Amino acid sequence: MITLASDFGTPYPAAMKGVLARRTDARLVDVAHDFPRQDVRASAFWLREVLPYFPPATHLVVVDPGVGTDRRAIVVRAGEHLLVGPDNGVLLPATRRLADSGRDGDTDVDYECYVIDESALESAEPAGTNTGTIANGPDATALCPSEDDTGRPDGPASATFHGRDVFAPAAGEVHETGLEGVADLEWLTPLVDDPVDCRLPEPTLEDERAAGEVLAVDDFGNAITNVPGGFLTGCDHVSVNDEVVPVGETFASVPVGERLATVGSHGYVELDVNQGRGDEAFGLEGGKQVTLETTEDD
Amino acid sequence: MITLASDFGTPYPAAMKGVLARRTDARLVDVAHDFPRQDVRASAFWLREVLPYFPPATHLVVVDPGVGTDRRAIVVRAGEHLLVGPDNGVLLPATRRLADSGRDGDTDVDYECYVIDESALESAEPAGTNTGTIANGPDATALCPSEDDTGRPDGPASATFHGRDVFAPAAGEVHETGLEGVADLEWLTPLVDDPVDCRLPEPTLEDERAAGEVLAVDDFGNAITNVPGGFLTGCDHVSVNDEVVPVGETFASVPVGERLATVGSHGYVELDVNQGRGDEAFGLEGGKQVTLETTEDD
Amino acid sequence: MITLASDFGTPYPAAMKGVLARRTDARLVDVAHDFPRQDVRASAFWLREVLPYFPPATHLVVVDPGVGTDRRAIVVRAGEHLLVGPDNGVLLPATRRLADSGRDGDTDVDYECYVIDESALESAEPAGTNTGTIANGPDATALCPSEDDTGRPDGPASATFHGRDVFAPAAGEVHETGLEGVADLEWLTPLVDDPVDCRLPEPTLEDERAAGEVLAVDDFGNAITNVPGGFLTGCDHVSVNDEVVPVGETFASVPVGERLATVGSHGYVELDVNQGRGDEAFGLEGGKQVTLETTEDD
Repeated sequence: MITLASDFGTPYPAAMKGVLARRTDARLVDVAHDFPRQDVRASAFWLREVLPYFPPATHLVVVDPGVGTDRRAIVVRAGEHLLVGPDNGVLLPATRRLADSGRDGDTDVDYECYVIDESALESAEPAGTNTGTIANGPDATALCPSEDDTGRPDGPASATFHGRDVFAPAAGEVHETGLEGVADLEWLTPLVDDPVDCRLPEPTLEDERAAGEVLAVDDFGNAITNVPGGFLTGCDHVSVNDEVVPVGETFASVPVGERLATVGSHGYVELDVNQGRGDEAFGLEGGKQVTLETTEDD
Repeated sequence: MITLASDFGTPYPAAMKGVLARRTDARLVDVAHDFPRQDVRASAFWLREVLPYFPPATHLVVVDPGVGTDRRAIVVRAGEHLLVGPDNGVLLPATRRLADSGRDGDTDVDYECYVIDESALESAEPAGTNTGTIANGPDATALCPSEDDTGRPDGPASATFHGRDVFAPAAGEVHETGLEGVADLEWLTPLVDDPVDCRLPEPTLEDERAAGEVLAVDDFGNAITNVPGGFLTGCDHVSVNDEVVPVGETFASVPVGERLATVGSHGYVELDVNQGRGDEAFGLEGGKQVTLETTEDD
Repeated sequence: MITLASDFGTPYPAAMKGVLARRTDARLVDVAHDFPRQDVRASAFWLREVLPYFPPATHLVVVDPGVGTDRRAIVVRAGEHLLVGPDNGVLLPATRRLADSGRDGDTDVDYECYVIDESALESAEPAGTNTGTIANGPDATALCPSEDDTGRPDGPASATFHGRDVFAPAAGEVHETGLEGVADLEWLTPLVDDPVDCRLPEPTLEDERAAGEVLAVDDFGNAITNVPGGFLTGCDHVSVNDEVVPVGETFASVPVGERLATVGSHGYVELDVNQGRGDEAFGLEGGKQVTLETTEDD
């Protein structure tokens, strides 16, 4: 199984699926292609929350504001999973979660990173080319002699769609190779330094006060903070940026249209509206500061 | 084959797919994840119209404004299909259609309902947990000791994502079990009373007048009413809330941008604009009243 | 493998998938279902750019503003691919690309077209009908006696969802039949005249000036012109409708929020904003004229 995640919308993910289908019969499952555009941190959060529910798989991730720069393309083995994407941190939070062998203190975070040598990777060649193996990397596929009846333009190569030309071919190859063989692939070399990391921000926690921020807003409009749900233990109400709202176990614990704080499905405090949008009602969006204070009930 | 339908947007359906893929190799096919948010009736309408085109399959449906309340989670066997979702009526119109063995008057509507015992169902456990079987139900997965390098927060359990924690595990299990074995599953018990129903509204039909309402608006903007298409038989024009428009067999029977009434692909009167949005042109949305009157042609 | 592309949004593509799944176990892969509504030319462009990345497959395409008129429904064999859709030109640019056996001058464009005889094609019959084979074409499926407990309306047949009732059954059948057998299918007859064509517009190219137009805007907001990328060779800056912007190999070659011209992944000049929307910044949309002039660098 290969999962795909990007901020591409459509139809670019389909080109990646075609490239994958030329290399593997693996099932292809979309995680999302509407991640907040070029937002590495929010994408990293969602991947960390979703990918651990999958059985061992290859995960192709392209949220890549630096496409075409000298940022590296990497493959990560994390436990029994493989991840393929840009070296901009987007893979790291999920990597740590997938590589975590336990929760009992002697955590053995088990992962390895490799750099993709793009010039040695056989790239995506579309139908209607007779160029065979692309020796000089993916961009060579765009070098064609002249406009002809097939409507193919001439011109210099593109450097803007590594999802199709680098990451998808790499994902197809490592998936077919499997966990054991990745270390032997000629176009992969172990990272000598650390991959670029992405750390989700930590809240400041006191007994009755938590200063955090919004990690992401989901499609329901629930504003997911970085404050652990435990902060709300035993509280009936909480002050959110100085406005007091009820704490509920479920959305339906308040009337339709009313605000509340819950512990969301990720384990964090979420700020919601029953059958409405919490982000709008609380004036919140990704990255916004949130101060929570537990209040004495009258 | 397992179909998935929800009002989740992304990426929550991917977590459900991961949970399913841990339990079954069945093909996963999306029906839609942008059903009108928490709109049980419109979702029920779409499921009734779409699911009957599938071969025998398991259908996972999560449109669930009452998540976390004491509304039941159910499994329905309807003919050769299985449906899994909340007991709020969203499954019933499709159930009746799927269970219908004929159209010849002696209709034998063949379905059975079961309640899911959430505490006995093995839930979704993500990678990076070493908790094994979740004896106490899905929420236990969120109970973890403390924030650590994997970024997993501590805190009380979530009650807000039963799609991932209840319905997807149940759908994977019943799919693997098959139609014959469902009755023997320990975590399913036959419903002793009736499931919650959802009846789509019936129009009032007279010879030359139909008083109905809009069941749903599709992504083209076609306003789908509950008035059977037969009402338009023999009509060249129809008055829609007192505005007369042509009746056409196809959108292209009127100029681009013009309004018309058609018999849509569901067999109902639809109010459309050729290459435009009928809902906007007629001022309609789901639930709005529509009065149709056939007019004498001059 | 069967790919699906349409302007349907949801959930109509799911009905097509159900119809396909009754006929074949082939993998189903979405290309896009949010093509610009009823925009044959933009859809034809995207299909030409995406489908060639797939291995030999059947491609089901429904962008069909003339549904229900006397426009023909066709099947095309293009090289090792099969395409199924309306005869309105949407398949032709991809057909030429898929059928192109080489780039070396003696191009042998290898494709054949067939007309679907809708009255001879076994159509889609949903569950809850006992009509068996539909002898009189797809619309017969909507002819049912009367409203009953299954909520099925009576009324005349629909002529508006050929994706479900004609193209999907045809795609499932030709996929199962395979390339060799298509010519022998009883419900297919070779086209005696040419299929309706769709030619993407050609730019006017001079040494330092190109007059073209926007073919499509992608989901990032990049405005993709029909000017071959080669026009920018050796340029540091280009004038776009009289406004000078830098030419960059990558989005990141200009600061975030700044405009630039690149050679996009399709080989054409694209007008972009680094981490922003080029269409808005340049005031462009599909079909708009673009005049590019190379400028002397000071």
